[in-house]
Amino acid sequence: MPSTLRVGIVGAGGYTGAELVRLVHGHPRLDLVWVAANQRAGQKLADAVPTVRGISGLGELVLESFDPQKAAKTAERIDVAFTALPHGASTLVVRSLVEAGARVVDLSADFRLKNRDTYAAWYGDHGAPELLGKAVYGLPELHRSELLGARLIAAPGCYPTSSILPLAPLLAQNLVEKHGIIIDAKSGVSGAGRSPGPAYHYPEAAEGMRPYKVAGKHRHTSEIEQELSLQAKADLRVVFTPQLAPMNRGILTCTYATARPGTTAESCREAAKKLYQGGLVTVLEGDALPDTLWVRGSARAHVAYALDERAGVVLGMCAIDNLAKGASAQAVQALNASMEWPDALGLPEVGMFP
Amino acid sequence: MPSTLRVGIVGAGGYTGAELVRLVHGHPRLDLVWVAANQRAGQKLADAVPTVRGISGLGELVLESFDPQKAAKTAERIDVAFTALPHGASTLVVRSLVEAGARVVDLSADFRLKNRDTYAAWYGDHGAPELLGKAVYGLPELHRSELLGARLIAAPGCYPTSSILPLAPLLAQNLVEKHGIIIDAKSGVSGAGRSPGPAYHYPEAAEGMRPYKVAGKHRHTSEIEQELSLQAKADLRVVFTPQLAPMNRGILTCTYATARPGTTAESCREAAKKLYQGGLVTVLEGDALPDTLWVRGSARAHVAYALDERAGVVLGMCAIDNLAKGASAQAVQALNASMEWPDALGLPEVGMFP
Amino acid sequence: MPSTLRVGIVGAGGYTGAELVRLVHGHPRLDLVWVAANQRAGQKLADAVPTVRGISGLGELVLESFDPQKAAKTAERIDVAFTALPHGASTLVVRSLVEAGARVVDLSADFRLKNRDTYAAWYGDHGAPELLGKAVYGLPELHRSELLGARLIAAPGCYPTSSILPLAPLLAQNLVEKHGIIIDAKSGVSGAGRSPGPAYHYPEAAEGMRPYKVAGKHRHTSEIEQELSLQAKADLRVVFTPQLAPMNRGILTCTYATARPGTTAESCREAAKKLYQGGLVTVLEGDALPDTLWVRGSARAHVAYALDERAGVVLGMCAIDNLAKGASAQAVQALNASMEWPDALGLPEVGMFP
Amino acid sequence: MPSTLRVGIVGAGGYTGAELVRLVHGHPRLDLVWVAANQRAGQKLADAVPTVRGISGLGELVLESFDPQKAAKTAERIDVAFTALPHGASTLVVRSLVEAGARVVDLSADFRLKNRDTYAAWYGDHGAPELLGKAVYGLPELHRSELLGARLIAAPGCYPTSSILPLAPLLAQNLVEKHGIIIDAKSGVSGAGRSPGPAYHYPEAAEGMRPYKVAGKHRHTSEIEQELSLQAKADLRVVFTPQLAPMNRGILTCTYATARPGTTAESCREAAKKLYQGGLVTVLEGDALPDTLWVRGSARAHVAYALDERAGVVLGMCAIDNLAKGASAQAVQALNASMEWPDALGLPEVGMFP
Repeated sequence: MPSTLRVGIVGAGGYTGAELVRLVHGHPRLDLVWVAANQRAGQKLADAVPTVRGISGLGELVLESFDPQKAAKTAERIDVAFTALPHGASTLVVRSLVEAGARVVDLSADFRLKNRDTYAAWYGDHGAPELLGKAVYGLPELHRSELLGARLIAAPGCYPTSSILPLAPLLAQNLVEKHGIIIDAKSGVSGAGRSPGPAYHYPEAAEGMRPYKVAGKHRHTSEIEQELSLQAKADLRVVFTPQLAPMNRGILTCTYATARPGTTAESCREAAKKLYQGGLVTVLEGDALPDTLWVRGSARAHVAYALDERAGVVLGMCAIDNLAKGASAQAVQALNASMEWPDALGLPEVGMFP
Repeated sequence: MPSTLRVGIVGAGGYTGAELVRLVHGHPRLDLVWVAANQRAGQKLADAVPTVRGISGLGELVLESFDPQKAAKTAERIDVAFTALPHGASTLVVRSLVEAGARVVDLSADFRLKNRDTYAAWYGDHGAPELLGKAVYGLPELHRSELLGARLIAAPGCYPTSSILPLAPLLAQNLVEKHGIIIDAKSGVSGAGRSPGPAYHYPEAAEGMRPYKVAGKHRHTSEIEQELSLQAKADLRVVFTPQLAPMNRGILTCTYATARPGTTAESCREAAKKLYQGGLVTVLEGDALPDTLWVRGSARAHVAYALDERAGVVLGMCAIDNLAKGASAQAVQALNASMEWPDALGLPEVGMFP
Repeated sequence: MPSTLRVGIVGAGGYTGAELVRLVHGHPRLDLVWVAANQRAGQKLADAVPTVRGISGLGELVLESFDPQKAAKTAERIDVAFTALPHGASTLVVRSLVEAGARVVDLSADFRLKNRDTYAAWYGDHGAPELLGKAVYGLPELHRSELLGARLIAAPGCYPTSSILPLAPLLAQNLVEKHGIIIDAKSGVSGAGRSPGPAYHYPEAAEGMRPYKVAGKHRHTSEIEQELSLQAKADLRVVFTPQLAPMNRGILTCTYATARPGTTAESCREAAKKLYQGGLVTVLEGDALPDTLWVRGSARAHVAYALDERAGVVLGMCAIDNLAKGASAQAVQALNASMEWPDALGLPEVGMFP
Repeated sequence: MPSTLRVGIVGAGGYTGAELVRLVHGHPRLDLVWVAANQRAGQKLADAVPTVRGISGLGELVLESFDPQKAAKTAERIDVAFTALPHGASTLVVRSLVEAGARVVDLSADFRLKNRDTYAAWYGDHGAPELLGKAVYGLPELHRSELLGARLIAAPGCYPTSSILPLAPLLAQNLVEKHGIIIDAKSGVSGAGRSPGPAYHYPEAAEGMRPYKVAGKHRHTSEIEQELSLQAKADLRVVFTPQLAPMNRGILTCTYATARPGTTAESCREAAKKLYQGGLVTVLEGDALPDTLWVRGSARAHVAYALDERAGVVLGMCAIDNLAKGASAQAVQALNASMEWPDALGLPEVGMFP
């Protein structure tokens, strides 16, 4: 096994792509050798991602276009490709790279769902259904053994990461009821991607909060239900309410579930600590509550629990950086896990504060 | 009845006080004649509230100290007092003014709870329990007839306003179950008041979101439960999760309740429109969802509903400006209602956009 | 003269249009009777400007399209039109309305420059040059007598307002040298208008500051130079540096000029107070410095002065709300002045704090 | 020379301290072994700097108190101390550590000025004047040879870094006049430190901009003048205007200087590129202008130039992260330089975007 992997990024001009550039550059065993972005092909990487201007080895990289027909040639230049494309656009790119022999970590939703029909119900027909069973859901804390040696990793979505992490231990350990789960999630605006639009125009996103795609309309619902059902060993339904918050990065998710008899906040914390050992999840102690400010730029998630005794409800909370643990850092963490490297290798664990 | 009321504000140096100055100044039948703020006594109002600098009739006002012993003299100078003091600090001030014959609209929590024991459980012993029964809860949309001619009005809290408005019609019309109600609320930082502290220091409040006082620890829980129990004609318990959002003004509240058979989003909207006729609540049509940006600086609340059919849950949402409909504008609206003036008289209905 | 004017707004779907809706609605002698926005024709005003949802008399207004050919019909329905269109798009609309007999207050740059050649140099050929001489520059503090009875008012730009106000008294009173003037201005993002674009996409405007169109490239330079030259009675050149600041509203402008012998901060303040009497400019006393937060939503400007004795430089500072005193409120103020009403009539002088 | 240095941080609970924790943790040749913060002594580092919660090797560190009397013992445990204390509080701490034989990188203003009288004029009497001559001003791009082997490094201030970098090459190469230099600087709020106060209370810092300590009142003026005078080989005076911008991190500085005959933007760029070779300054090409968003979390500065030909003024602009290149990252860079390591060793060059 090589001590260093040559890395390519497809979609390097978007936010998760830019975050991958930052993370791969800081990783001791990853070398960024190739960047692609069809819409910006020919541009310097530094024009698309101005944070690399003047940095030796990055500032000069030029964005190429990627043609699935020529994936074989690309695969000669790289060991692993991160594909950071919009949902739907990833399928054929990933297939071509997998077939050409590259390892692929895909950051879109295209390979996260296991069930073809579920995929069709939420997204439409899948363009490469034969790969659905081969892709590993890249949440190392829950799928570590499957990730070992994986060649196709589907990095989880940001909302799902922040929704699954607080609930998984509760459901796996039968600490809460399986029905009546409510997930109220607030995301920074970078989660919407880099394409401008009225909803993300500064004056209409700053200083305001709003829900969107509520009541079963957001596609991430399917991904959350798949993973929580796995943990609960039962088919689950959740109410999921995504909301836009006036900040760049960060997701704060509050989950509500009915406590089973005997459940305490402490038993929830214990279950989470046990499940997340070796991963990049900090379970906050005692009454401490999470703050997205504490994980900005960090590969870690913070999880906390409280029991509302008056109502018999467990409140599970999670804070992540949507572009880091919610996307690009988790993609690298999953690659690390697939290589049997420590999860945190080369990743910023200490976030920027403030 | 006088065509114009002489107004005094006690606590004019805080944020709800400053908002009252703005609103009273714009009101055709209110004259601001006296301002008090013990900690800033002797300062010009313009030094405490720099928005009034140079404005004829306001810039020259000087903050006085208020001594309950001399309330009688104060009461000769004013017809109505708005008291915008911290919780606990209001009780004796209000009693002295009421006894001296002034109308009082109190913006603290001191007179909102009807039940002395409930008050004691959440806040400690009450200093003027004889007034608890006389104070009218100043949510005109729900207590219009009691407000007529009221001499002591307890203006509702910001979180309670945004929590009660979407749920009240559902409970009053039996559209949802009375148990299992969850309220997930996100507030701008001005809701924490004007005293600096680590939690509201810009670098630790900007760009981040966090919950606080979760799981039955926030005192506003009692106020929400009192008013919703009234509407439901039954003793209710709610799970209430307050959160700090990185914005100055605004509360976005998502409420979750189990739908009763036959309930639709449309039936929820109809119930709300009927209940809120003549008030300052806009029930959004169809799939429209609220945005705190649409009510910034406005005396109105926006309410919306969605039904999650997969889970049988009604999502009731509300956006308000915490300092306007959530505090000072509602206080003026309640005074208007007590005078039998139109609710909106003199109040900014059109918010600042953006 | 009618006691109430019927008002139409062309371009009601943009930010200055929305602000005009707010201001006209609150004005006791203006009635909003007609709104137009060609790109949104047929939409409810409430869909374009969600702050009016549910408000009686506004929520139901429907945006019409405006055809200069039919200006005569429009002119029968209104007494005054505010035209809030992009630069260039305003010219023919304004001409048609003026010819049809309506009063017009134009918020674009189309009629602000007096000199046709200057206009051509910065903007290209003018489409209605015969009107350039008839339009009055709508800064009431400097052009009060010309505004009396004016039928075509060119409301000043936001940067020019904040640049001219601190410098005009210094130049008029010969307190500073006429050469070497530097203007460093920082604007909130709403100044860029409502059309989304990469530069104003929330994640790339929040939490960052950047200059743009520096070193003589910003068109507002011509407008600033015209007005300052008038005051100085000499042809002036200024260095103007516009910058984008991560806030919705507000411009903070710092101007630098060489002090002439004997000039003090106090003499600057005196000159400004004298010049701005009766207007909507607050000259801050002593060492007080301006804050855009103190004029948010307000029709007033705050101006302050300091003398750097070590360098012999006068620092003149100005804070305004770019959409209020920098655009729509000033447009209404100019209309007030043209009607010989008090400048502040119907305008919010007290801003929103915080 | 050891391959790894044991690092202690005095003042680890403040923002520059927290940033040092982040940077030292990511540095391959620095080991964080000791943290002190007198006001928080006994607390876990994780309670003061919540970004380290749960991170192996950091989460368990406990903040100690530091007693200059016992510096010798401390010096046995560490090779280098970063002192991140308020101005004035650093002097005796630094002296004790230097005398005990530790290398010290001081982030306060206490050792930046060379001239004792200048120090006294701006700050008062100095407590360890004998060290003023021994401390090296830690701007590696300008003082590289002096830094080699330095045992006491005074890390530059944030405003000075962003002011000196664009102007130094112009003055050193005689491209601009030495008189009439104006510096207009806008800083994020983290620059004010971690102590809450009314000026930095979120509701009064968000969404607003304001100048402070203008016209020769800000102490950083002396530091800027010292370094620019060195470059210009002449005694310089500058006008310096600091301003607070509503963002966490970042300084954008615009400098204005009179162009000498023949100077072009390109000649300015060339002078800067030459001077800054090997350092962490990116000189932007052509018309590109800096954005603080491009250097957030990065150890690099971005510098750009424009010539206003109409006025004969050179505009030099600089964007930095005030806590990184403006403080902690520059402190590590200076240590790197003193060890003859590459400037960028272990430092994040690629900032967080967005």
